[in-house]
Amino acid sequence: MSISGPSGVIDTGGTRGTDGTGGGRGARERLVVIGGDAAGMSAASQARRLRGPDELEIVAFERGHFTSYSACGIPYWVGGDVPDRDRLIARTPEEHRKRSIDLRMRTEVTEIDVAGARVRSRDLGTGAEAWTSYDRLVVATGARPVRPELPGADAPGVHGVQTLDDGQALLDSLAVTEGRRAVVVGAGYIGVEMAEALINRGYEVTVVNRGREPMATLDPDMGRLVHTAMEGLGITMVGDTEVTGFLTGDDGRVRAVVTEDATYPADVVVLGIGVRPETSLARAAGLPLGEHGGLLTDLSMRVRGHEDIWAGGDCVEVLDLVSGRERHIALGTHANKHGQVIGSNVAGGYATFPGVVGTAVSKVCDLEIARTGLREKDARRAGLRFETVTIESTSRAGYYPNAALMTVKMLAEHRTGRLLGVQIVGREGAAKRVDIAAVALTAGMTVEQMTMLDLGYAPPFSPVWDPVLVAARKAVAKVRRAAP
Amino acid sequence: MSISGPSGVIDTGGTRGTDGTGGGRGARERLVVIGGDAAGMSAASQARRLRGPDELEIVAFERGHFTSYSACGIPYWVGGDVPDRDRLIARTPEEHRKRSIDLRMRTEVTEIDVAGARVRSRDLGTGAEAWTSYDRLVVATGARPVRPELPGADAPGVHGVQTLDDGQALLDSLAVTEGRRAVVVGAGYIGVEMAEALINRGYEVTVVNRGREPMATLDPDMGRLVHTAMEGLGITMVGDTEVTGFLTGDDGRVRAVVTEDATYPADVVVLGIGVRPETSLARAAGLPLGEHGGLLTDLSMRVRGHEDIWAGGDCVEVLDLVSGRERHIALGTHANKHGQVIGSNVAGGYATFPGVVGTAVSKVCDLEIARTGLREKDARRAGLRFETVTIESTSRAGYYPNAALMTVKMLAEHRTGRLLGVQIVGREGAAKRVDIAAVALTAGMTVEQMTMLDLGYAPPFSPVWDPVLVAARKAVAKVRRAAP
Repeated sequence: MSISGPSGVIDTGGTRGTDGTGGGRGARERLVVIGGDAAGMSAASQARRLRGPDELEIVAFERGHFTSYSACGIPYWVGGDVPDRDRLIARTPEEHRKRSIDLRMRTEVTEIDVAGARVRSRDLGTGAEAWTSYDRLVVATGARPVRPELPGADAPGVHGVQTLDDGQALLDSLAVTEGRRAVVVGAGYIGVEMAEALINRGYEVTVVNRGREPMATLDPDMGRLVHTAMEGLGITMVGDTEVTGFLTGDDGRVRAVVTEDATYPADVVVLGIGVRPETSLARAAGLPLGEHGGLLTDLSMRVRGHEDIWAGGDCVEVLDLVSGRERHIALGTHANKHGQVIGSNVAGGYATFPGVVGTAVSKVCDLEIARTGLREKDARRAGLRFETVTIESTSRAGYYPNAALMTVKMLAEHRTGRLLGVQIVGREGAAKRVDIAAVALTAGMTVEQMTMLDLGYAPPFSPVWDPVLVAARKAVAKVRRAAP
Repeated sequence: MSISGPSGVIDTGGTRGTDGTGGGRGARERLVVIGGDAAGMSAASQARRLRGPDELEIVAFERGHFTSYSACGIPYWVGGDVPDRDRLIARTPEEHRKRSIDLRMRTEVTEIDVAGARVRSRDLGTGAEAWTSYDRLVVATGARPVRPELPGADAPGVHGVQTLDDGQALLDSLAVTEGRRAVVVGAGYIGVEMAEALINRGYEVTVVNRGREPMATLDPDMGRLVHTAMEGLGITMVGDTEVTGFLTGDDGRVRAVVTEDATYPADVVVLGIGVRPETSLARAAGLPLGEHGGLLTDLSMRVRGHEDIWAGGDCVEVLDLVSGRERHIALGTHANKHGQVIGSNVAGGYATFPGVVGTAVSKVCDLEIARTGLREKDARRAGLRFETVTIESTSRAGYYPNAALMTVKMLAEHRTGRLLGVQIVGREGAAKRVDIAAVALTAGMTVEQMTMLDLGYAPPFSPVWDPVLVAARKAVAKVRRAAP
């Protein structure tokens, strides 16, 4: 374990395909995992479940302080719904190590040497560098938040919310902030969830957004409903504008967000402008990247053209089963599935990740937001002709107490009537109804088939025609009229 | 319109295929509908939407006082969640008549003369009888509650809850009842919903049931969870016993329910022993009935072997898509779909009802109960071999406030891994998750395919693996172990 590597750094592992520690029956292989969050550690755990330590050595590198945590939970921790950070951690480094995973925390992989089948790492504490050879490699480097290159963007009081460290920094910042004005830049999932978190913390919240409507993952007509509802919650919504910089005070802390049109005083700023695949290592190593900058894999999550390298989670592109195109979606539920599939395959099992239909749900206070499949512009880009319908219905039978209104928009393919997408905005009971459409999309159902789906009906749970079926019925009528 | 019929009664319609009122262009056909609730009036309304009054005359007979009402809503009206009866009525007789439907209320059809293509009816007010000829006939006679032929079963204070009149009678009875002890006979959907209603009205509730566990539409292990939860709500659960009679007081009102083993004092009794297809008319007319006593139709809801007769709603048997066998399911959501399909077909359009997967949801106070597909005994009866798994998970991410426990049981076919059924018992967010499985069953998915379903994920709405997917993963492992 101390063989001098070609760059003069220490090699912490044996040569490929052998077990540096000796012993055991035959060759013990080594799996190296880059990234200790959902995809990476799911892969490691699943591989360990299938292959014991005498068959497979697992080395995992994580540059941060935490493993296997829920980044999606950060807004609820910041907002106070989740009392402490540790609740967001599904499995600690110690728990992983107990399962014989050689986890190296605060250690960043700085290079993948594909030809040499090894990775170079640096201990962020000591600065020591080392090479580790691998038989199989999992790249799970995640995503990085988009940060604007603007004056003041790095000032104290301007926060991203990608990692637990980011969340802690924001909470620390809120603790020292005297004023109560918060500006959120960006009105996607993170933006609207952080708006809720800051409302819950007692802030006056302004959301500044490039697009006219929030939630660009919805069509603008559905985004408009979110816009109106957020204003109803007392959130100031500023759309159609570009942030040009951040003003700071004498103490260096942020004081305002400046746009093309106006200046918004801010005691704290949260950036929610989206994320990009973190693939700088992969790019430098010559691994194949797609048009969104994510790694390209086959259905077994193996990196294309590389027999011994797998990739999953926020750093890969996934196949959209509806459009047939690759997309980048940073979402914990996909990362966990990727990890599961990769872990099975690197351990000699068999599993595939067939792709996604693009389901996402969110909420801002009591407003629920959901989408699956294609928006109008996605469908156009994919070369599809389609009909759209929008209906209003309720979460329960209309006569049942607390029946909540929801708006359902549905896209169906011209002539064939194949379901293409659904968007839902409403109150309690709206968001998870999108699962009906997600499964129907996966199965390739037509809206006509959907009208006869045998969904759960009782007055406390649904009108006699579920809102999704009401939309499907209207879509059938429109498809028929358009192509008799 | 006053031609003497062969039995000496008045014929209120013209001869077959002609328009007795004269005028109009060419032959105006007549559609006759027997039954003015969900299936019948949906069929009438859909037919009217497609064919105007100059093309199609529509005559509908209803022996009761109401049309198009939600029988499923009765427990919530009795329990006080729904403030008044009229909220349960989707469309009144007047509203139907405005749409040119000749609706004859309080008029019972007493005979279908298939050879003569006419029906005999009796005005329940005047006693007058009449024949009405039809070009097309819709039989939507619904279901009748099972009433035990036991001493005292007809005593005041013993109530069914099938119709709005039943509900009103029960409410009137509650108003004059001094004691606060209620006994519910039967622990199926109606039984548990009525138990909740009576709890809400301040009654001490005892549920007496033939089976050991409530909710025979679930497997007993899942019914056991309902049992325990109902006891936790303060409901006395008596299983494995047969009611032998009802004791009455000097005033003739019910005083107790007597079983083989004990006597349960009762100030009011509600019967929830289930329903049977109301097909006495159809049987007398020689129409084909299935093993459950319901009418048999083809996929267009046309009665088998009868070109001009359709049937739908609680009086028909439906194809179970999972077992390939006919079932009887009395449920408003099916009745509405049947009506929609029939209405399209009788008007010369085209629609089919492909069958059901047996989805049902219910609740008792905050306990949610759901099922779809086959129970263990259904699967056995269908000749299927299967594996079962049961898991516990939560409605939201475990760290999110109010994450509610739910138990999910899943059946998958031996070797193929095809999903066969799902049962869910839990708190908020449990019941409608069954829709995921309902769509997957309809699509014929395997549990392995289900593990990669792209379902809505965000911490307020789901753990990173939805409970249904957790069950699917475990089912995959079991199917693989059983058939490697």
